[in-house]
Amino acid sequence: MKRMSNPRAQAKDKYEVVSELAKRRGFFWPSYEIYGGVSGFITFGPLGSLLKRRIEDKFRRFFIHRLGLYEIETSVITPAKVFEASGHVEAFKEPMVECLRCKRRFRADHLLQEFAGLSEAEAGRLSLEELRREIEAHGVRCPECDGSLGEHKLFTTMFTTTIGPYADAIGYGRPEAAQGIFTEFKRLYELARERLPFGVVQIGHALRNEISPRQGPIRLREFTIIDLEFFFDPEEDRPPLEDVRGEVLRLIPAEVRLKGSDEPLEVEVCEALKRGYIKVGWLAYFMALAKRFLVELGVPPERQRFIEKLEWERAHYSKQGFDQEIYLERWGWIEVSGHNYRTDYDLGQHMKYSNIDMRVFKEYEGRTFVEERTIIKPVLSKIRQDFKEEAQNVVKLLSGIDPNELEASLKRRGFYPLGPYGILPEHVEVARRKVEERGRRFIPHVVEPSFGSDRLTYVTLEYAYGTKGGRALLDLPRDVAPIQIGVYPLVSKNGLPEKAKEVHRMLLNEGLTVDYDESGSIGRRYARADEIGVPLGVTIDYRTLEDDTVTIRDRNTWRQVRSEIKTLPELLRAYFQYKANFDDLGKPV
Amino acid sequence: MKRMSNPRAQAKDKYEVVSELAKRRGFFWPSYEIYGGVSGFITFGPLGSLLKRRIEDKFRRFFIHRLGLYEIETSVITPAKVFEASGHVEAFKEPMVECLRCKRRFRADHLLQEFAGLSEAEAGRLSLEELRREIEAHGVRCPECDGSLGEHKLFTTMFTTTIGPYADAIGYGRPEAAQGIFTEFKRLYELARERLPFGVVQIGHALRNEISPRQGPIRLREFTIIDLEFFFDPEEDRPPLEDVRGEVLRLIPAEVRLKGSDEPLEVEVCEALKRGYIKVGWLAYFMALAKRFLVELGVPPERQRFIEKLEWERAHYSKQGFDQEIYLERWGWIEVSGHNYRTDYDLGQHMKYSNIDMRVFKEYEGRTFVEERTIIKPVLSKIRQDFKEEAQNVVKLLSGIDPNELEASLKRRGFYPLGPYGILPEHVEVARRKVEERGRRFIPHVVEPSFGSDRLTYVTLEYAYGTKGGRALLDLPRDVAPIQIGVYPLVSKNGLPEKAKEVHRMLLNEGLTVDYDESGSIGRRYARADEIGVPLGVTIDYRTLEDDTVTIRDRNTWRQVRSEIKTLPELLRAYFQYKANFDDLGKPV
Repeated sequence: MKRMSNPRAQAKDKYEVVSELAKRRGFFWPSYEIYGGVSGFITFGPLGSLLKRRIEDKFRRFFIHRLGLYEIETSVITPAKVFEASGHVEAFKEPMVECLRCKRRFRADHLLQEFAGLSEAEAGRLSLEELRREIEAHGVRCPECDGSLGEHKLFTTMFTTTIGPYADAIGYGRPEAAQGIFTEFKRLYELARERLPFGVVQIGHALRNEISPRQGPIRLREFTIIDLEFFFDPEEDRPPLEDVRGEVLRLIPAEVRLKGSDEPLEVEVCEALKRGYIKVGWLAYFMALAKRFLVELGVPPERQRFIEKLEWERAHYSKQGFDQEIYLERWGWIEVSGHNYRTDYDLGQHMKYSNIDMRVFKEYEGRTFVEERTIIKPVLSKIRQDFKEEAQNVVKLLSGIDPNELEASLKRRGFYPLGPYGILPEHVEVARRKVEERGRRFIPHVVEPSFGSDRLTYVTLEYAYGTKGGRALLDLPRDVAPIQIGVYPLVSKNGLPEKAKEVHRMLLNEGLTVDYDESGSIGRRYARADEIGVPLGVTIDYRTLEDDTVTIRDRNTWRQVRSEIKTLPELLRAYFQYKANFDDLGKPV
Repeated sequence: MKRMSNPRAQAKDKYEVVSELAKRRGFFWPSYEIYGGVSGFITFGPLGSLLKRRIEDKFRRFFIHRLGLYEIETSVITPAKVFEASGHVEAFKEPMVECLRCKRRFRADHLLQEFAGLSEAEAGRLSLEELRREIEAHGVRCPECDGSLGEHKLFTTMFTTTIGPYADAIGYGRPEAAQGIFTEFKRLYELARERLPFGVVQIGHALRNEISPRQGPIRLREFTIIDLEFFFDPEEDRPPLEDVRGEVLRLIPAEVRLKGSDEPLEVEVCEALKRGYIKVGWLAYFMALAKRFLVELGVPPERQRFIEKLEWERAHYSKQGFDQEIYLERWGWIEVSGHNYRTDYDLGQHMKYSNIDMRVFKEYEGRTFVEERTIIKPVLSKIRQDFKEEAQNVVKLLSGIDPNELEASLKRRGFYPLGPYGILPEHVEVARRKVEERGRRFIPHVVEPSFGSDRLTYVTLEYAYGTKGGRALLDLPRDVAPIQIGVYPLVSKNGLPEKAKEVHRMLLNEGLTVDYDESGSIGRRYARADEIGVPLGVTIDYRTLEDDTVTIRDRNTWRQVRSEIKTLPELLRAYFQYKANFDDLGKPV
């Protein structure tokens, strides 16, 4: 590999080296290059799309199968109402500033980080007006043409479109897959046989219309999100901590950050809960699993940390939030997953906006209470008189609201806003009634671990990258390596290719992902395979023709063992399920 | 199942029955119901998303692994330039008419089909003006309010948005995944080691902003497309027909349709090629595979047909096209895949719009030719003088164009439009040179089979649906059934649940999808499993505690066999790979 031993090349950072390999071998590359490229979009080539899919499948085994979660699929294009309810239309905006000369537009807070040395936390908490003042104070100018910077505005970073032929039917490209789960909560709860806790996952494309994305595969306008929404009763926050006990997390709690430090504490997960660093059991549980998941993808614990978001950094729905960060050579600490305690915020908002009851009912065990409750009775004659053909709808909407809120509003404001209708005191009778409470109704709370599948893929690649004997070698975990096995005839003559193709076909039929390669010297073929992280190579040589045995070569150690062809399916299956090691695959050569 | 034996329910059509089951058991349902629903979007619930994923994985085994195709992943949001080049911006439009009274908008051609009895083919070929006249002539009025219909317009059925903060950076939601493959052709060709033929697949969301979609899961605004672009040398159209020989297709060729018939001919695939019904070998090959694929999904041959598109029905890029149609009870013949001969159209268009050479080079075998060729030499001094700092770019662009086109344009128009630049005669020297031709350069041709994953899922469900003993039973093929195995303790006491959970865990660890169910009588549990198509049930009874054997129950015949727990992993694996039948799983009970 001339490229690697070239001293100029040595100066490249790991991102450059990995991206170059990724491009050359078909993991990923910038999209639409023939049209000059559009930043924020990448193409996953044949190997990359396989690697990404295997990481997602590993996520399924690791989280979904372990906990019996559900997976669903909803649309990327979403009617505006959903993101109005969720608060995204209001909150999903970034500060933008335009150069007065070249008219280019930039993230105002990013400019302050880059050219005035503010930290992300400092720049992130500034209001539009404060940003303007800071940019002026630091004399920040246009990084492209040195022009002076003009007005500051908030830019909605959701992609906007219209659904169907009416201009007022706004649709957004979803910035998260979570809302597709929340809007369908009632059906999902029924499918879960109306029992808490339960969790639902969605893995799919999401869109964020970044103002000026850079950072290749790290900051994308279109990416694959893995959102896991876990619904639980806040009075019964009891995750199976025995699964994760002993797992040490490197935590930077908000209180530490507020003192100006970013030195992580190393705390065992149950201890972190007990000490109150993590406020919810399920949050802690998923953080511990997330740490372990990244270890299995090849990132050692010391290159991971969980940083608690400060109040002004947290998403609008979050009561406590941690970012799981991984250290990358070029960019430093980069988020690969976010862990948020979303409380009952989202379901509560959808309940408010849709007038559909999102509460669940839980019986008290063996006890009942007698309680006085406010009830409302619609005065039908008045309602018919005032609302005409809308009367039925008004009555229906009234049945879904909180009587106490209605009563309070009538007292305070003289009316109650019921969707598009104004309810006056004469429309309803408010009364008290003693009722027997057999249980309670409440909106489930939600803990959300959320991963970026593209970032996981890049991180896995960067951590797998290394060299051996002066050549590139991807030490990909065997359960995510895109190609599992290479099959090689030692030479491409004398019947060896035919025999090798038989073995190739047999392994394909076992459901394994197998490459067949007969071009070039065997050394070159091994090198090509190492470079894309193929864990095992099966070589067919002259002895194979005599006794039906082959050699199996280990990518990482280059050691070889010999075994019978007929035993391969079972041996290899065990190996890729981590039930056998390389040494179990045959006799050392 | 009271629902089924109710005589009123008997009158429901199959779509209604299947949709009801799909909703109740979590296969799919209309999205955003809490906000009144938005037509054209469905949610795949836990079982549906698994079923859909398994069908996609079956597609991978059936097509991708068989032929060694590539799979890639590109973005849904696509810069406008791509769809300008591909012709979609011009062609992807539908005729729309608005009611003058209620302002609702409709597909003009659909109204004519519904209310004036025109066939799809008849309505589809009318121009805007002709549509207007026909609608007037037939007195078609607004189907919602009976108002009269106003102006006819063309409506672009791509979702439109902007990429980034500049209003002129238009982006479209892709209506097909194919363009993501064509724009990346050069890299993909390199990865294929510059050899033809090769094929690339993309499975991902696509968007079509239908004017007024109905038909539930059949006509969606957001759906999953499976586009397979197969690149080949048109002079070497040699698919491995031996793979498909003997496969009989039910074809309705254009010539038959033009005579007013829609009676399919039953023709063996190679015969269909020979007789010229299908014009391209690779097209025929993929059609035969597509037929077989649908048979494996449960659709018998007599419920399938391939209908050739007439000239005015074909997409703008297609030279010959067939729709694979499946008969559904409610809607009649419905397309599940399209098979188009896209020729070199798309790559040629991108070559024109991007000025990037999309041609491949193929050496003549053992022969060379001497040819006279037109060449152009840029006159650098003149170019620098006129284009200043753009000069380098002009020279670069000149190197990529066809010298004959330039020469012709200079002669005809006195200049040549080179992207944004105008090339005048003084900028270039045009000369002839004798060159030795060692091969030829050409744009590869493309055959495209394209499937809709959502429709495949619905079709598979409808064809699997049946009843046995008065109860619903889904006869899903074992390789796509979302849940593979149910594990049941005979009763939920005396240690049986514990033992059953052990078996459940063991089978999960083998990578199987397994449901554990202990609630209700065993008969009820079997019925629940049959209704969602679980092929096998494993029951743990008192004898299990003595001798570690279990019964295995077959969904379709309700027969049972008995086998040892320790043999289950191997037996079940063989069964789900179609290497064993139910009778091989143990001794009859």
